[in-house]
Parts: sequence; structure tokens; C-alpha cells
Amino acid sequence: MVIVMGPEATQVDIESVVTVVQAAGVEAFVSRGVRRTIVGLVGDVTQLDAAGLRGMGGVRDVMRVSTPYKLVSRENHPERSTVHVGGVPIGPDTVTLIAGPCAVETPGQTLDAALMARAAGATLLRGGAFKPRTSPYAFQGLGERGLRILADVREETGLPIVTEVVDAQDVELVASYADMLQVGTRNAQNFALLQAVGAAGRPVMLKRGMNATIEEWLMAAEYIAQRGNLDIVLCERGIRTFETATRNTLDVSAVPVAQRLSHLPVIVDPSHSGGRRDLVLPLTRAAIAVGADGVIIDVHPQPELALCDGPQALIDGDLEELAGVMRDLPALLGKSAAVAQPA
Amino acid sequence: MVIVMGPEATQVDIESVVTVVQAAGVEAFVSRGVRRTIVGLVGDVTQLDAAGLRGMGGVRDVMRVSTPYKLVSRENHPERSTVHVGGVPIGPDTVTLIAGPCAVETPGQTLDAALMARAAGATLLRGGAFKPRTSPYAFQGLGERGLRILADVREETGLPIVTEVVDAQDVELVASYADMLQVGTRNAQNFALLQAVGAAGRPVMLKRGMNATIEEWLMAAEYIAQRGNLDIVLCERGIRTFETATRNTLDVSAVPVAQRLSHLPVIVDPSHSGGRRDLVLPLTRAAIAVGADGVIIDVHPQPELALCDGPQALIDGDLEELAGVMRDLPALLGKSAAVAQPA
Amino acid sequence: MVIVMGPEATQVDIESVVTVVQAAGVEAFVSRGVRRTIVGLVGDVTQLDAAGLRGMGGVRDVMRVSTPYKLVSRENHPERSTVHVGGVPIGPDTVTLIAGPCAVETPGQTLDAALMARAAGATLLRGGAFKPRTSPYAFQGLGERGLRILADVREETGLPIVTEVVDAQDVELVASYADMLQVGTRNAQNFALLQAVGAAGRPVMLKRGMNATIEEWLMAAEYIAQRGNLDIVLCERGIRTFETATRNTLDVSAVPVAQRLSHLPVIVDPSHSGGRRDLVLPLTRAAIAVGADGVIIDVHPQPELALCDGPQALIDGDLEELAGVMRDLPALLGKSAAVAQPA
Amino acid sequence: MVIVMGPEATQVDIESVVTVVQAAGVEAFVSRGVRRTIVGLVGDVTQLDAAGLRGMGGVRDVMRVSTPYKLVSRENHPERSTVHVGGVPIGPDTVTLIAGPCAVETPGQTLDAALMARAAGATLLRGGAFKPRTSPYAFQGLGERGLRILADVREETGLPIVTEVVDAQDVELVASYADMLQVGTRNAQNFALLQAVGAAGRPVMLKRGMNATIEEWLMAAEYIAQRGNLDIVLCERGIRTFETATRNTLDVSAVPVAQRLSHLPVIVDPSHSGGRRDLVLPLTRAAIAVGADGVIIDVHPQPELALCDGPQALIDGDLEELAGVMRDLPALLGKSAAVAQPA
Repeated sequence: MVIVMGPEATQVDIESVVTVVQAAGVEAFVSRGVRRTIVGLVGDVTQLDAAGLRGMGGVRDVMRVSTPYKLVSRENHPERSTVHVGGVPIGPDTVTLIAGPCAVETPGQTLDAALMARAAGATLLRGGAFKPRTSPYAFQGLGERGLRILADVREETGLPIVTEVVDAQDVELVASYADMLQVGTRNAQNFALLQAVGAAGRPVMLKRGMNATIEEWLMAAEYIAQRGNLDIVLCERGIRTFETATRNTLDVSAVPVAQRLSHLPVIVDPSHSGGRRDLVLPLTRAAIAVGADGVIIDVHPQPELALCDGPQALIDGDLEELAGVMRDLPALLGKSAAVAQPA
Repeated sequence: MVIVMGPEATQVDIESVVTVVQAAGVEAFVSRGVRRTIVGLVGDVTQLDAAGLRGMGGVRDVMRVSTPYKLVSRENHPERSTVHVGGVPIGPDTVTLIAGPCAVETPGQTLDAALMARAAGATLLRGGAFKPRTSPYAFQGLGERGLRILADVREETGLPIVTEVVDAQDVELVASYADMLQVGTRNAQNFALLQAVGAAGRPVMLKRGMNATIEEWLMAAEYIAQRGNLDIVLCERGIRTFETATRNTLDVSAVPVAQRLSHLPVIVDPSHSGGRRDLVLPLTRAAIAVGADGVIIDVHPQPELALCDGPQALIDGDLEELAGVMRDLPALLGKSAAVAQPA
Repeated sequence: MVIVMGPEATQVDIESVVTVVQAAGVEAFVSRGVRRTIVGLVGDVTQLDAAGLRGMGGVRDVMRVSTPYKLVSRENHPERSTVHVGGVPIGPDTVTLIAGPCAVETPGQTLDAALMARAAGATLLRGGAFKPRTSPYAFQGLGERGLRILADVREETGLPIVTEVVDAQDVELVASYADMLQVGTRNAQNFALLQAVGAAGRPVMLKRGMNATIEEWLMAAEYIAQRGNLDIVLCERGIRTFETATRNTLDVSAVPVAQRLSHLPVIVDPSHSGGRRDLVLPLTRAAIAVGADGVIIDVHPQPELALCDGPQALIDGDLEELAGVMRDLPALLGKSAAVAQPA
Repeated sequence: MVIVMGPEATQVDIESVVTVVQAAGVEAFVSRGVRRTIVGLVGDVTQLDAAGLRGMGGVRDVMRVSTPYKLVSRENHPERSTVHVGGVPIGPDTVTLIAGPCAVETPGQTLDAALMARAAGATLLRGGAFKPRTSPYAFQGLGERGLRILADVREETGLPIVTEVVDAQDVELVASYADMLQVGTRNAQNFALLQAVGAAGRPVMLKRGMNATIEEWLMAAEYIAQRGNLDIVLCERGIRTFETATRNTLDVSAVPVAQRLSHLPVIVDPSHSGGRRDLVLPLTRAAIAVGADGVIIDVHPQPELALCDGPQALIDGDLEELAGVMRDLPALLGKSAAVAQPA
């Protein structure tokens, strides 16, 4: 971190800054110039608050130099990682299709959705048993009953399960059924939950907070990694902007940017970012073309009856087109569709 | 809710929409016009996903009519509410000053900060024992030891305590010490936590999510209210925008807007929104002038040694000015500074 | 437009709303319900200010029904349009590559860039002679001298020219050289300029304002169309969000959304949205994959010497990869790379 | 400007960066560290594009040190400025009330609005003759006829005039009538217009672009100042965010931040930021309390008949309250309401 003092900074201003810095256990080196003085910092600057330093007398600017995350950074781990979920790889050589219903409602609906997903090329099954909903009056999921349905459908179809956990207290329960734990956008800074999934012994899919910068997203991943779990897949799912034509704005640029900064795989959720069925296939193509390591898509046998996000779910006709995309597009990028690897 | 069909909508499009609506247990009334057909909805539309409906064939627009929150709405509760915290009112007739250190560090630092706060006119003490931090390498708070320090300082100063809880599992513990539970901006959609504080039998201060619309903020409050707790104070603390000169953008308009929509008191946090000490007093004046029912401010006896957000904390000289603001400004709005009421 | 009155609305409130509406020459139909009254509007509601109506006594909500643009809307023109620029089509059947230097600097640099562009498959040449720059101390372009260089390079390479105009007073001059006029993101609501290019008798490329909603973008196009010019190509170039890792956030979803709402072709600028060379090819692939009718890309023979946006310009090695994308990707979407059509 | 190279940066990477920097006429000083190399820049770095540099091989970060504006910066002009408009001061010692109709419609309406404004304490009259409107179908103003009405009303009331100019070609005409030229939010980066008003010999009110950072706003002011005109008043009028409850989000923090960075006066427009009449008075109080040097407010004798933004205009009852605010609130900040000074 570098602190730039303005020409009006007094000796007392400079000493105050040095005191603050040293109080946080960081070394401060003062370089005096003709018009400006620069204070260079060495040590663990994570305790320091740049915005606050900026408000101190005489300070012109505060600039951070090092990345604030370490375990998930590509700096110390130049090779991009592959995460395996029930034998299915998610990583730089493949495009993984994860699909299934937004919410588990009944055994029949879940099985039908899983079969649709598998026919379209999916090798992992998504499905929510615990649903975080903006309104307390909306359907909140079936809970453990939903997890049992997912387990039965895995048995029947052979598809490993990805499912969300919304509370640290439920992590153990969900991990006892799931092949991969999902942390949703609303919990992207629920640090108790991040630490709990970090300790659960399962791969984790970490959705980007709808208001999180890429750096904050990687910091959230660092919370998980700190507990010893590096099997993390990042999932871009749209950010909140002023545009209201789509539910959120899919930030496709975040895929190559995150892949450059971190060794973790990065996938995209085209269903929740747009919130509209007519956008799912175009955004899926864009995601794969930009270099995503996979996509996660809502499907539903009867979207008009879905209890959650039905109208964004793909239906039969779309799925043939999706199968075509999965067959043709990855090859253009030197990748292949991901399939389960023999144990 | 009203669904507007475009001129190109077919009979099948209209029937599909009606099917989706009825599947959610909502009645649908179809009005055919020369160029457009409108589907009016009656019933609990909270299960319906407007963005999704918008993606269906023939749909031009979807417009919500009723407010999606009920218990916290002013519609059924026209009088604005006053919440009492250890005898101190927060409500429409007063301006309540809550102040204290961002984080509890030591007994001495906490007591000194509390005495500074009280001298400036504060009648409630803030202080964090559990700190949600973006970086896993930053100071995370003293936990229960911090709560005990707060309780001791309350004993010494007579100031009731406001303190944050970050995990549903800790609610009972924190509630056993605190006079008011705070839910922070990063947990504004941590629904498990909202439900837990709703059941804890303590007044709650609910910070606005930094990416939450006013409506989503009120929906989060509804989660708390649903568990039987209407002693909720809303706290505007800045939203995330493209501007980087301040940590967040304080949305002062949200105060009168939320007060018009909800009967709950609304206060402002000028310390965390700006993130800079030089902005705290100007933003405090703006908050009171716009009609806020209180403000919550960071103070620290030695900000240069603070373990968290030190450089935004007010220091001695500022506090005299703050005391002046609290003495003169509320009167201009027909209010008075809030003091503890005799039991 | 529909105005929803709250249950507290008085007869006087309702009549005030009707008066405002009728004053704008719009008919108002009042439907009284048990709890709510709805005022339906028929006529040209463009004079009415929804936000303002929302502030009137008793008003709960204001909802717009009709699209506020007509000439560029797909509603009355269901076939998607193709715009021809010097014989080169931009439209639904093709992917058009427009490339060239951000700014015209010298004859040699412009010719070299044009040859690089052509070799990569470009059939239109971009290049700025008038540059709108955030800083008054930055290079502002060569003006008419730049236009003459472009015309010479067109002569030499056969590539028609796309170039920006930044002031209504310059439109005639620029139109005397250019095959297509570009309106930049900072002028997306410079209505005098929009009207002037609408009357200039040349196809127009209209960049989306970096803070414009898709609806506002189409309204800006409507300003051009109103002057009798429907040869308009929309260009998505990134919107401003809280994310700072990229210069702007490319909103790929805007491509299919705008194509659904308007019959105009929609292209993408991957160079200016990301502002980083390493993102140009991934974003180009994403743009074509999402269905864009073309892309516009910065190239420069020596980016390290460029006077404007050099470091985002593609260089030789990248261009081979770009040529490969243009060869393989459009076919996957049932399109072909656009080439000039014989007169 | 400082460029930080990553540990993976090669000698060639470093030399490329130095070449780019030197090509822009800037000196580059390379400091090699154990893990990182830092390139310090001295000279006019305004030609350099930080985002672009960030994309170059080996570059980890690019940080700007100097402010990119000079004439409007407080660095070289520590005293805050006062601008006089027809004898009325706008500056640090006063709070100036500017009021009048959003649009000039008729002589009677304009005179009535001016009298209302004056009665409430206004000493400058606002009123638009040229209106930039999002929709081409909305009322665009009376043009020169409107300017003549304003001049007549100035004659009658003694109030100097503030009016908007939307096109560089109209500057001379508007300046021949107006006491102060206004540049609106949609033209905040219309550089031709900024330069033209800079040369017009009249004080200028520069509204912040609804998507402009504070730095870009000051850069726009620098365009005006460069033409020799330092009589510039900055006007905060709300920025675009994700919140839809208000038309824009008033960024009150921008007032003290801009006052710290620039010597120019800063005022606030509470009418257009909120877009709702019920927010105008609360936001006016907030603006004055945060330290604004003035406010500009819409009034209309019959808002229900206004051709532009009527429903946000204050009416008679509000004006008494406004007069009270102007009487009592400035004094609390050690200021007084601004009045015309004898010539």
C-alpha cells in the first residue's frame, strides 16, 4: 500500500499517518519529494482501511499494491485448477453443463427435469431444497424432504447433485446429501456460512454477490479456502445496475478477468442473470464463447406450474438447441463438453 | 398485479399466462381491448415472478399494484411508530444519537468512547463484538468477551447497548447482553438471521443492504416482523454506486421515502456511508435535516490505533460540534434530542 | 399509462390527477374499486412525467403501458432491418466486422491499421478525426485533416468509412467524407446532434449512453428516425456500474433485448467496453455468440505509440485469432461474415 | 502516476511500458524491488490511458497521483471562490436560492412563478427556454420566445436569469439574454458546448452528469475554465443508481467532497434529483445542512398544467415552508441567505 501526501501536508500529518500504520503492525517508509511525500507500507495491510486513511489530514491518495487474497490468487498458483464433483470435472479443458429445476417441488417434477437436463448434455444436476426468497410470503423450499428427493433422483439418473445451503446451521445436513454445496448471491458476504462450507469437505459453488466487485468475490472465496477447502467454483450470475430490462446485468467480462486473477474455475448462470427464458440460450452461448468453464441452467418440465422462477426455465424445444450448443461451441474454443470420469 | 399483453399476443399466449397465474393460487381476470389485453390479478401474488412473466410469449409488461410487505407497511398502520431501547425512544418526535466505537477492543477504549459519546449527547451506545469483514485476514471482533465489556460499560455509564449479530447461531448469546440487536448491511438478505432476530425478543436495527432497493429493505423488515417482532428501526447506511470518492453513496432521499411507505422509524449511519471522518458531521446534519429519527456514529478515543474503521471515527474536537448539532438542529424540525424516559 | 390511487386517496386527489392528465391532452378513465381506484390513460402520454405523477397526493403507483418510441419499434415493423454502408450490409443475416484505429494520427498509421483490419476480415474502416475526451488536456483528434486521411485510405483499401461526429455544427463536414456517422456514448442524449445526423443523409451508428437504459437508447434512435433517417445501427459499448476491474461493463443481454424491441441492427464494441486488450477477443466471441449483427474493434500498428486508447488496440498476433473467429463463429449461428455487395 | 508491475513481469514487459509512457512525452523512472518493479511517471500524464496500461503484459496496477484538473482545483487556489450573477453572490458565505418554472410556457405563468420564487426568498430566477427531453415527442421549449419572456420578467421583478443552453450553436443567442448559462446533466460531456459556454463571457452553472464521477464533473468544469471562464458554479442533481423509488439518487456527500477538491461553489437541485414534490423540501434542508452554497428549485403557479416536470414543482403552501428554511437554516451554519449586492 502506498499513501500519497499532498503538498499542504505538515510534519504532524505525516507522523499521524505513520502512527496509524504502525499501530496496525505495518512498517512505514517515508519518501519526501519536493512537492509530495509518499509513505510506502510493508507488512499485512489488511487491517488498514484505505477510505479512512484517505480522510486523514494531508492525505491525497491511498493506493493498494498487493492483492488482498492469497490462497485463491493465481499469483502463487499459476496453473488454472480443475474441481471434480462426483467424478465430473469443472475446469479449463472442459465446458460443464449443470441443469435442473430452480426448486425441488415433487419427486416427479425433479426426475423429469433431471432427465431433460441429462438429454441436453448435463452431467450435474442442480435443484434447490432451501430457497432464499426476497419475500417472506414466497415458497421457501422443501428442506430435508427436498434433499431426499434429489438423492433419489441421483440414484435413478447417475447425476451428482449441486444444491444450495442458506444457513451455517444446515451445512452438515446439506453436505450429507449433496455432491457440491452452492452459496447463493444473497449470502456472498455471509461469512459464517462461508466458513462453514469451507469446513464441510465438499466442493463449493460460490455465486458472485449481485453487488460484489470481482475482488470481493475472490475475498469471499478466500474465506472458504482458509478453512482448507480449495475445491471452489466461482459462478457469475449478473450484477445489479440501473438497467431494468433484465433482472440483473450478466457481467461476461468477469469471466476472463476472474480467470486471470484466480486459478479457480469460473462458470456462468444465464438463467438467473437475465430472469427471462428468451435470454437463456443467447447468454449461454455468450458465456461459453467468452471462456466460461461451465454453465448452470434452470429447466422445468412444466414451467407454468413452477413454484419458483418458472418463467425463466427452459422447456423441451429449447433443450434441443442447448444440446446443439454444447455439441458445437466448446470445440471452437479447444474444449470439450465435460463428462463423468471413470473412478 | 397487472399483466399487459401486446397486440401480437395469441389466445394461447393469454391462456398460458392465466395458467401460470392460477397455478400460483391467484385469480386472473382477462380484459380484452382493441389493441391490448390486460390480465388483472387478485390474490397472493408474492409467489409470482414478475421478471419471469415478462419473458412469456405475448407479454408486454407486468406491473405490481399492491405493496409486497404488510406488517411494516404504513398502509394498514398510518401512525409512525416509536421503538424504545432500554427506555430511550427512537421515533417521529425525537432525534436519537447512538454512538460508540466501531469495534470493542479493550475495556478502557470502550469506556472512553462511551464517555465521549455520552458527552456529545448520545443516549445509546454502539459497539461491535462480532465484526463481518470483507477480508478473512482483518480483525473479526472479540466475540463474547466484547459483549461482556459492553455490559460492564453499560453498568458504568447507564447507556443501553446496540450491537451486531452476524450469525443465527449467535442470536441467543448476543440477545442475552444487548438492548438492541443490529443486522448489518452484508446480512440484509440473510433470511435465517432475520428470522432468528425476529424471535429474539429484542428491538432490532436493520441496516439497508448496500445493494437493496427500499422495497427489498422493507421486505427484509417483514421477515423480522413475521416472527412477531415489530420493534424494528431501519438504518440507511449508503448504497453502492459507480462513485468511488466515498465508500458508499448516502441515499438521504431514502429517509422520507421509507417513512412514507412504512411506519417504522428510520435512522442514518453517516460514518459507514462516507467512510471518511471529514464527511461525518456534514452528513449528520443532512440526515437530521432530511427528517431522520436518529443517527449512529463511530467515535474512538484514539482512532489512529483503532482495529476497525478508525480513520472514520470522530474525535474530541468533532464531538463538541456534534453536541452543538444535536442541541440546535432537531428544534428546527419540531423535534427534540431523545433522552431515556423514566421507567 | 395507468395510475393507481391508494386507499387513502380522496375525491380531490383523484380529480387533481385527472386535471393534470387532461391538461396534457390525454384522456383519463377512472375505475373505482373497493380499496383502490385506477385511472387509465389514452392518448399521447409522452408529455406526462411518471415520477412527478407519483408524487401527487393519493397516488400509489404509475405504470406505463405503450412503448414511447414508434418509428424504431419492432411493434409496427416486425421484420428486422438491414442497413447498408457503402454496399456492406449490417443486419440479421450477417456479422459485420468494423475495425481500425481509435484515432487517426498519420496517413501511414491509418493505412497500416486499415490493412491489418482488412486482413482480419473487416469490411468497414473505423477511425476518429474528432475525439471527445474526458480531459481537456488529452488529444482531441486531427479534425478535417483526419477526415482527408480517412478518405485517402478508403481510396487505397476500398473500405467504406465509419467516423464520429461530436458537434451538430460539424455534421455536414463529416458527412461529406464519411460513409457512416458515429454518435458516441457521451453524446447519446445530445439531442441537437441526434437531430442533425438524422437530417444528414448518411447511415448512423448510435452508441448506447454509458448510463442509458435500453429504452432511452431507443428513444435517442427515435430522435434520429424522426428526421427521416431509419438507417440506424445500435451499438452496445458497456454501461457504467460499480465494478472497476473493467472500464465499463459490457451488457451482452442488451443485444437480444434491443433486437426484440426494435427492428434496427445491433452491434457491439468490445474494445471500449472492457478497455483492455486481453478482453477484446473473449468479448468479441461473446458478442457474436449472443447474436450481435457485428462488432467494432480498435486496431493499431503500434499501440504503444497510440495517442488514444492504445493499450486496448489489437495487434498483429491477435488479428489472426480474430480472423479465425470471423470465419468459424458466425456459421454456428446461421450467419455469414458480411462482405460488400456488388452495386 | 505510478505503474506497478507484477512478479511475473519480464524485462520486455517493463520496457514496453516505458516505451508507451515515453511516447506520450512523459518521463518514466523504474524502481526494481525483490518481488515487484514500480514505474514512476513525471510529466503530463493526461495523454495516458490508465485502463489501457492496466491491460499490458506484466502490469499489476496503475495508480494516478496528481489531480487531472488544474484550473478548478483547490490545490493551487486554496480559497473557495464566490461567483456573482447579476450582483447576487454564490459562494461560501451565503446560501443562494434560485427558483422558477422548469420550462417557460407563457408570460403570465413565468411572471407568477417568479413572484412566487421571490416571495420565498429567491434572488435568481430559473426557467428553461430550450429543454432537452428524453422523448422527441415531449415539449422542447419555446426557444428565443422563451428567452424574451424571461427578459421581460427580469425587468418586472429585478431577478437575474439562469437558463439552459443545449447546443453550442445557441450559446451566443442565449448569452445575449441570460445572466447565467446552465449546462444540463445530459450535456455534461458535450465538450463542444462546454468550450462554447467557456468563451461566452457569462457565469456558468454546470450540472453533474447523472453518471459522472466527481472527478469527471471537475474535468468538465476544466473544459469551461480552459477558455478563460472561472465563474463556474457546480450543481449536484442526483446520480443514476439501481434505486427506482426516486428519479435519481441525490448524492449529498458530493457537496463537501467537491468543495474540498475544487474552489468552485457547489449548489444542489432537489427538484430534479428526487422528481417528486414531497421530497423537495426535505432534500432542500439536507442540501443546506450538508453545506451547499445554494439550491435551485422548480416552482409553478399551476403544476397540474405544467408542460414539463409539473408534479415536482413546489406550490404556494410549500413556499412558505421554504421561506422558513431559508430564514432559519443558513444561520445554523454561519451563513446568510444571499441577496443582490449594490453595484
